[in-house]
Amino acid sequence: MNIQIERVNEQNVEQWMYLLDGLAGFEHRPPIGTAAKKRLKADALAPTPRFEAYLGALDGEAIGCLTLLSTYSTFRASPVLYIEDIFVLEAYRRRGVGQVLFDFCVRLARERQYAGLEWTVLKWNEPAIRFYDKNRGVPISDWVWYRRDLHA
Amino acid sequence: MNIQIERVNEQNVEQWMYLLDGLAGFEHRPPIGTAAKKRLKADALAPTPRFEAYLGALDGEAIGCLTLLSTYSTFRASPVLYIEDIFVLEAYRRRGVGQVLFDFCVRLARERQYAGLEWTVLKWNEPAIRFYDKNRGVPISDWVWYRRDLHA
Repeated sequence: MNIQIERVNEQNVEQWMYLLDGLAGFEHRPPIGTAAKKRLKADALAPTPRFEAYLGALDGEAIGCLTLLSTYSTFRASPVLYIEDIFVLEAYRRRGVGQVLFDFCVRLARERQYAGLEWTVLKWNEPAIRFYDKNRGVPISDWVWYRRDLHA
Repeated sequence: MNIQIERVNEQNVEQWMYLLDGLAGFEHRPPIGTAAKKRLKADALAPTPRFEAYLGALDGEAIGCLTLLSTYSTFRASPVLYIEDIFVLEAYRRRGVGQVLFDFCVRLARERQYAGLEWTVLKWNEPAIRFYDKNRGVPISDWVWYRRDLHA
């Protein structure tokens, strides 16, 4: 499959919203609200974007997406490419689209001389876990990830 | 204790290196090498720094440090403050310095209207885990964190 990877821009941003809605559904989350979509678009398209959003397109139709962050490991004294989202529409799965998207991330991290890549996966998402194991991902088992949400 | 929090700059950057060496020792890692220290200093002091590094100082002496990143949650459609490092020298622990540093992070995240804070903790670091539980941190148990290291 000839997947074209393109950065999210003013022209294709609604296709990206469609994919993020698909991702929300896949993760059993409610659809993204209007205010959240407005923030996502502003943060993706700002002069200094808060993340890098990409679409994977087949014959001009967006069928997958990536959201990437440049984080940092003081332990490695190097930036790390963090994959916040990697998603392929259900109808296009098992055809190598995810591999094209993941390979793009690895290539980007190598080109930038980052120390590596990190991402998280839902525990029940067994096809994704098999995919990451095959792609030399290593689960980080000696650390616990914590969150504290802030509410206005 | 009257802890002053100051951004790492050209004047105090060696104090920050001293603290990061202390953190490496605490985590049973080897001392930070010369090349890594050079990269850390360059990345902290660049015109567009790759992270925000802060010192906690008592009477002008740096006794703790913070390394912070602005990451992003597409789920929340908002930035997140990621605490890459939070560290207090052993001789100054159990006196509230960590609380001052953590409160600074919460304040920063609130001021910036971020969705929340995230961090990781080593599984064996029970005092830190108790501290985070007390500070309304929630372990994220439904996701697995993955890494792929790249070697040149």
